[in-house]
Amino acid sequence: MAHYIGPGKALDPEKYCIILPNQLGNGLSTSPHNIDGDQAMENFPALSIGDDVVAQYRLLSEKFNINQLQLVTGWSMGAQQTLEWAIRYPDMVKRAAPIAGTAQCTPHNALYVDVFCEALISDPAFNHGAYTDSHSCEMGLKRLAHVFALMGVSAELYKQQLWQRLGFESKQAFLEGFWEAWFKPMDPNALLVMARKWQRGDSSQHANNDLALALQSIKAKTFMIGFENDMFVPPADLLYEQKHIQHSELKLLPSLMGHFAMLGLFEEDFQAIDGLFSELLAS
Amino acid sequence: MAHYIGPGKALDPEKYCIILPNQLGNGLSTSPHNIDGDQAMENFPALSIGDDVVAQYRLLSEKFNINQLQLVTGWSMGAQQTLEWAIRYPDMVKRAAPIAGTAQCTPHNALYVDVFCEALISDPAFNHGAYTDSHSCEMGLKRLAHVFALMGVSAELYKQQLWQRLGFESKQAFLEGFWEAWFKPMDPNALLVMARKWQRGDSSQHANNDLALALQSIKAKTFMIGFENDMFVPPADLLYEQKHIQHSELKLLPSLMGHFAMLGLFEEDFQAIDGLFSELLAS
Repeated sequence: MAHYIGPGKALDPEKYCIILPNQLGNGLSTSPHNIDGDQAMENFPALSIGDDVVAQYRLLSEKFNINQLQLVTGWSMGAQQTLEWAIRYPDMVKRAAPIAGTAQCTPHNALYVDVFCEALISDPAFNHGAYTDSHSCEMGLKRLAHVFALMGVSAELYKQQLWQRLGFESKQAFLEGFWEAWFKPMDPNALLVMARKWQRGDSSQHANNDLALALQSIKAKTFMIGFENDMFVPPADLLYEQKHIQHSELKLLPSLMGHFAMLGLFEEDFQAIDGLFSELLAS
Repeated sequence: MAHYIGPGKALDPEKYCIILPNQLGNGLSTSPHNIDGDQAMENFPALSIGDDVVAQYRLLSEKFNINQLQLVTGWSMGAQQTLEWAIRYPDMVKRAAPIAGTAQCTPHNALYVDVFCEALISDPAFNHGAYTDSHSCEMGLKRLAHVFALMGVSAELYKQQLWQRLGFESKQAFLEGFWEAWFKPMDPNALLVMARKWQRGDSSQHANNDLALALQSIKAKTFMIGFENDMFVPPADLLYEQKHIQHSELKLLPSLMGHFAMLGLFEEDFQAIDGLFSELLAS
């Protein structure tokens, strides 16, 4: 998200107080490999999207004494958090822009998470999470990266060789320089904590497991933003939830970057997303 | 294909002489695990789609003295063979119905093949193809099955719980009773021979690697059949090739079974495909 923030952009720090918390377990915030004691490594507790949102709520209310948010936004698991925010604290969130994510993890996404986790934990070096060095799981991380390469961008991107626009000379260079380079430095246990959190994501629990009712409780003016060629979160999954949100619009962008259009690596994607932030903030 | 053949169906054996060859390396035809000698197991030679088609051609011309085919059809790798047939022997093939497959393997399909092969060969029991018993690779086969479960049918099928229509009581039962049950009995080396054959599929070699030119050489009346929610072979990939085939039509069916709609497990899919065979044969 950080590259969407700056003078002259919709998320202008000279105009707004902008807060970007890390999510729990992401390797920068409290995570399996950066703590000691009996919750370290493979013994790290399972987390929920709600755990993140409650921690963020406490940061805002107890530390900064903030009780109203002009906009809550986030991508992918950040979208899960955004919707959890809008459902959990409806009077606090004036506007919401979940991007390529849903309030309830879909069965297909749950399957996707299982597939990429299996790619990682089947590496003998993973050793049930009790590895000695995260880099020893390089083969598992590499296989996981390939699963992301398969569904993270559109099939059409590969056919049109649009990795050229990202500065790569071949598909193989794109696989290595983009996908493997993204995932190989990550910590396997941290990845798994986030993966399972993604998979368990379900804000319907705030309305007796009635997803429609949970979404109907949102008061925020909401732009449900998605990408037409997103294989993780296809437009149908967004429409399925958006139709229950009162003051909402479905905003679909056509990028061949699929789920990863949010990176804004294609200038037109960046401009379109920045434009939606502007439009929503002006309303 | 066998279930599309029968009295009263479009492919009526009382009306036509129907020949169904197995593909090389599929576990029934000559395959890594059913031969002895220095080409057995991990030493089995790499095969091409052309190897299948040439073997079939020789069967027809040398054994049966056939020099004209009313219809060539096949699904997935069978579609690759169908297009290879129509390009290689344009005067022999009067009608062609490739179903959910292309003359040239797409870069995204090639990546898909890599991902499911990695799931299999990373199983330590695989032992570079020199395993003692195919069932010892059960974990790798199971992971491969999950990759197929992820992209073989539509995401919407999982959300709408349409596995119920196939007789399963839960998503987990569908994963085990359909996908794992499909792949676990297979021989890993045979799967890899087929996978690499799929990946190398490229009929453009018959026209100096000019795919458009190769497709333009097809004389058969062609129905390029596909499935709207096919994540292996999306409609865009079919259209990309179909537009170069002179006497052709793109026929898209809407099934939520995705690539596996061809199984005809939903009665309406079966009827639609049978109907297309009828229409093409009547022309």
